[in-house]
Amino acid sequence: MSLKLTILGCHSATPRTLAHTSSQFLELNKDCFLIDCGEGTQRQLRKYKIKFSRIKHVFISHLHGDHFFGLIGLISTFNLLNRDKELHVYGPTGLKEIILLQLKLSKSWLDFPLHFHELNSAESELILDNDKVEVHTIPLKHRIYTNGFLFKEKKQERKLNMSVISKLPEIEICDYQNLKSGKDFKSEDGSIIQNKELTLDPPKPISYAYCSDTAYSESILTLIENVDLLYHESTFLEEHSELAKKTKHSTALEAGKIALKAKVNKLLLGHYSSRYKNLNLFLEEANQVFNNSELAETGKQIEIDN
Amino acid sequence: MSLKLTILGCHSATPRTLAHTSSQFLELNKDCFLIDCGEGTQRQLRKYKIKFSRIKHVFISHLHGDHFFGLIGLISTFNLLNRDKELHVYGPTGLKEIILLQLKLSKSWLDFPLHFHELNSAESELILDNDKVEVHTIPLKHRIYTNGFLFKEKKQERKLNMSVISKLPEIEICDYQNLKSGKDFKSEDGSIIQNKELTLDPPKPISYAYCSDTAYSESILTLIENVDLLYHESTFLEEHSELAKKTKHSTALEAGKIALKAKVNKLLLGHYSSRYKNLNLFLEEANQVFNNSELAETGKQIEIDN
Repeated sequence: MSLKLTILGCHSATPRTLAHTSSQFLELNKDCFLIDCGEGTQRQLRKYKIKFSRIKHVFISHLHGDHFFGLIGLISTFNLLNRDKELHVYGPTGLKEIILLQLKLSKSWLDFPLHFHELNSAESELILDNDKVEVHTIPLKHRIYTNGFLFKEKKQERKLNMSVISKLPEIEICDYQNLKSGKDFKSEDGSIIQNKELTLDPPKPISYAYCSDTAYSESILTLIENVDLLYHESTFLEEHSELAKKTKHSTALEAGKIALKAKVNKLLLGHYSSRYKNLNLFLEEANQVFNNSELAETGKQIEIDN
Repeated sequence: MSLKLTILGCHSATPRTLAHTSSQFLELNKDCFLIDCGEGTQRQLRKYKIKFSRIKHVFISHLHGDHFFGLIGLISTFNLLNRDKELHVYGPTGLKEIILLQLKLSKSWLDFPLHFHELNSAESELILDNDKVEVHTIPLKHRIYTNGFLFKEKKQERKLNMSVISKLPEIEICDYQNLKSGKDFKSEDGSIIQNKELTLDPPKPISYAYCSDTAYSESILTLIENVDLLYHESTFLEEHSELAKKTKHSTALEAGKIALKAKVNKLLLGHYSSRYKNLNLFLEEANQVFNNSELAETGKQIEIDN
């Protein structure tokens, strides 16, 4: 069970010389996800040597340009690189129209299947569910329809404790699956060996919540409770809290409060406004209420192993 | 009369770590024009310290992504920077729909006037005409509807030769405008002084033709004849001439032939395919037929003064 998150961009509004807009590449239990795709994301993927073919699922939080203007270029590049694997795009209603209009007008017929999963629910939805991972939307409060995304590894089966089992010849291979699923072992003479004596706890599933862009909203707390890692936007510092309210963004202090109340393990800050030159102020502010905070920085990698 | 051309990107297909897609910033007789706008153009403008507010006219050759995917981001950034000056965008029919759809879905109401001039004619058109410059389309032959653009300084009035005029008291200030417009001077006694004895030739107007993307096509020759500078795409070398034909692009040799036949002063090559590592091969090939060729390179500036 492992998570590796690469920050491709973590600044708000517009790309600047040293500031890349929102995009993250998430590897969770060997599945790969691209989260948001600001202009220039494909260049960032190349810079950090992430193979384009690894991306099978793209999640777009909302239709402000700093979160999706790079998607049409990425899809076009996939096609030029002769991609044949299917691509799934999850994002607000309208995203499909934007992408297909541009492909149509450029007479670009894709050689790979492109599946859109358009989102418009105000409630959290399970939008991806495979044998290793599930992804839920996190409805956020922003100026336009916006979702965060909760990525959760699935709980694995219990691990066989072979140092014990190998000494018990009455336990045969055909019994293993029952043990993995948590059942006790019943021998032919009717005696029972408790499952916990024969198996070990599986690694704890890892969970990651991506919340950008959003005003301070406690309605997300139950969804993100206890996650290992929370990315919560912090466009502003408290000195501009009025501006945060007006634009439906959060301050670093508010991000810290959400992290504390949701009892997450680690908080990752990002989506900084260009007005601030010293990003450490964000960290200091969040740390006032939640002391396991960290700054997202372009190119930074965060790894969690259980 | 002066031209300054800054190459923001000159590579084909997709942006790569060291390869930027098509965009050029043209300053002609103090008017400023952005020509094509591949993804990442706004970052290139910042890199080369070109003030966004100087751009009042954007010309898009065609709707392949490497020529326009950066436009929506640039327009959005103009808005975030509180632009109030009007912007004129010239490009194929459909470009307006693409831009307006994205602005609508992101609920971005522009605070500046955005005027689209949609192009669909198969014939050359005069699309901009002010007191200093005129711009004509150059219909090109590509896989989708494509125009090049011809930028021409307007011919200036003749210059008064004051070292002669000041010695002739019968010529008064009220005669100057007639002299500037080329008329001879008729004195009260009926004698005539030829205009060329009283005036000097004005600086030669500068002209620039941008031709990307296109198959080899002699139909553009009359339009671009004698231009000071011709940018002609050279996606391929002759060794891949079949591929050039198939994809409706040109080879460097073909670009050289067009430059020769159109009797231009200088040829600028660009829109290189990523398959070639050594761009000097393009220069060598074009120079076989036209020896005043030059490679477009990202960041290069070309200046012409008359």
